[in-house]
Amino acid sequence: MFELLKEEKTARRGVLHTVHGDIQTPVFMNVGTCAAIKGGVSTMDLLDLKCQVELSNTYHLHIRPGDRLIYEMGGLHKFFNWDKPVFTDSGGFQVFSLAQLRKITEEGVRFSSHIDGKRIFMGPEESMQIQSNLASTIAMAFDECVENPAPYDYVKASSERTVRWLVRCIDELKRLNSLPETINKNQMLFGINQGGTYDDLRIENMKQISELPLDGFAIGGLAVGEETEEMYHIIETIEPFMPKDKPRYLMGVGTPVNILESVYRGIDFFDCVMPSRNARHGNLFTWHGKINVLNEKYAKDIRPFDEGCGCPACKYYSRGYVRHLIKAKETLGMRLAVLHNLYFYNELMEKIREALDGGYYESFYRKYRDILGERSVD
Amino acid sequence: MFELLKEEKTARRGVLHTVHGDIQTPVFMNVGTCAAIKGGVSTMDLLDLKCQVELSNTYHLHIRPGDRLIYEMGGLHKFFNWDKPVFTDSGGFQVFSLAQLRKITEEGVRFSSHIDGKRIFMGPEESMQIQSNLASTIAMAFDECVENPAPYDYVKASSERTVRWLVRCIDELKRLNSLPETINKNQMLFGINQGGTYDDLRIENMKQISELPLDGFAIGGLAVGEETEEMYHIIETIEPFMPKDKPRYLMGVGTPVNILESVYRGIDFFDCVMPSRNARHGNLFTWHGKINVLNEKYAKDIRPFDEGCGCPACKYYSRGYVRHLIKAKETLGMRLAVLHNLYFYNELMEKIREALDGGYYESFYRKYRDILGERSVD
Repeated sequence: MFELLKEEKTARRGVLHTVHGDIQTPVFMNVGTCAAIKGGVSTMDLLDLKCQVELSNTYHLHIRPGDRLIYEMGGLHKFFNWDKPVFTDSGGFQVFSLAQLRKITEEGVRFSSHIDGKRIFMGPEESMQIQSNLASTIAMAFDECVENPAPYDYVKASSERTVRWLVRCIDELKRLNSLPETINKNQMLFGINQGGTYDDLRIENMKQISELPLDGFAIGGLAVGEETEEMYHIIETIEPFMPKDKPRYLMGVGTPVNILESVYRGIDFFDCVMPSRNARHGNLFTWHGKINVLNEKYAKDIRPFDEGCGCPACKYYSRGYVRHLIKAKETLGMRLAVLHNLYFYNELMEKIREALDGGYYESFYRKYRDILGERSVD
Repeated sequence: MFELLKEEKTARRGVLHTVHGDIQTPVFMNVGTCAAIKGGVSTMDLLDLKCQVELSNTYHLHIRPGDRLIYEMGGLHKFFNWDKPVFTDSGGFQVFSLAQLRKITEEGVRFSSHIDGKRIFMGPEESMQIQSNLASTIAMAFDECVENPAPYDYVKASSERTVRWLVRCIDELKRLNSLPETINKNQMLFGINQGGTYDDLRIENMKQISELPLDGFAIGGLAVGEETEEMYHIIETIEPFMPKDKPRYLMGVGTPVNILESVYRGIDFFDCVMPSRNARHGNLFTWHGKINVLNEKYAKDIRPFDEGCGCPACKYYSRGYVRHLIKAKETLGMRLAVLHNLYFYNELMEKIREALDGGYYESFYRKYRDILGERSVD
């Protein structure tokens, strides 16, 4: 159940109560695609990083090690030893971005695994069954994620089908949650808004899905090719049609500035591989702006990435040391950089929540959207 | 200064006092080639793994990031944030195993970097200067490590030259330790016994170097091609000629059984990449014998690698989970496996010391040399 604690213009401060504990929003979910965060980061590390929610990928886990195996081992929480909330995506995004030889019908999608080419069928029911096996706290509806830009007629037909799929997801999850052998009988479901970059399709779709019995609403199909300004425009277009009493999740977004802008426009949940992917290339986020620690000027720098940062990397190691590690391709370098960036994102969300609690989000947002997107002069 | 606390036949229990604290022996040094343990393991992790001594590689650090850089950042201890003892090897082993276009003269060795082909000269003085810059607790003498088997005449000439190099190392380190700008003015030096697989050369060499003012004596050039039994034979051959009041270090060895056998024959110090290298392929050491966690039978195994083990992997994660991670090539899998194996080695040494303290090493050794070398039936 979602509780809206406070509003500042369109921005919202809330809390989602789940069987695995409360999620304070706005929140950034830490992505562990294959039931592990890239860079050698464990669930024990996530505790140190102030992570509230871990997000795992249905498609990847279905293929390897298999959701049945995870079910038999007691579900994802037991599998990777984490008692806080877990999100699973629906597999849809990966089916449409990773899998090969895809064939979409009203029933669902037939495709080849990107690992071994094995033919797999996934529709709304299969996606719910897999996510029920994984026993995540919150499941996502199975949708088609259309790349931007796409022809109007294709997007219209696709988003209409996604609504029909959503109804099937609701029915199937209801059935699964009622089975005695289901691990998490309180599994929640978020629906996903689609409609490409067409305002009317987005609005029509949002109106339709907002009528359905769902625990939250995601905006899908953004950050997949369109301009950032177009993304903000679409959020602003849909937002008035999103139920106020349900959490809102902008999927796969984004930079710290994207998050500041989207919270400003009424979003509560985020996820993105950016903090870990950037870290692996030495790109680090700090409260003074971005730095690339591989830059020559950091070679002998004994300072941490960000002075005052409480992350496990900044507490003990220097820019010069981590620069050496990444250049020498030592996995420790990647790990320390990922730990820092995830901590930065989780701390960013904490400061956003504090600003909303204190009623000064507008000034916080205006200050940091100018700083966090730029290179640090430090 | 080395203190021999107790003897049980040839086996020894001791403590080496250093400026960076005491080293309880027998000890296994944890290898961090490029100033980081392979598998994303940091010096903070080493604290959890009961590591007493970190060992870094002179050759690798000279090439990248450069020992001058590490000197300017305050030495290795500050570079990777570790206040306990650090060993550095001399670079000799890597010059003879990794580097290309090698040319040996009385002065030293000219070779090409394995990273960028750059021509580098390293002799006894250069090795000591690099190790002084790194500011390790204990430096190793610069030696030629001959592959086994090698012709008698070559080994004889080589080990005689290594003795001449050793004298130059002693002189150079004495000079460096007296300079005001030297970071660790108490840097210790271990000499290295060579002589291939020839008893008379080994003994003659040991007699010569035992006369020199050194802080410890290593046995080099073993575990480089000869049979294990031959290695034990050589240790037994040299041991009576090794000073009793100085620590003894068997370089690059080995398996848990090799360590049990060598402690039995009077060795105090060990190092090896085996625990981390094996871990990366799923080969794990347990108190019931070896397991390969990639084995199909562990796919749904909810038990830790070794029940009762206190390592950070066994405390929180299962065989089934880590098996999945290694198969999915997640670096977390490698990290957890490495953490376990290093912990196992450090705990093995702890139990060896306890057995020596309690006067029951002989029975401990006989029991575990049969168990630790075999596959676990578990």
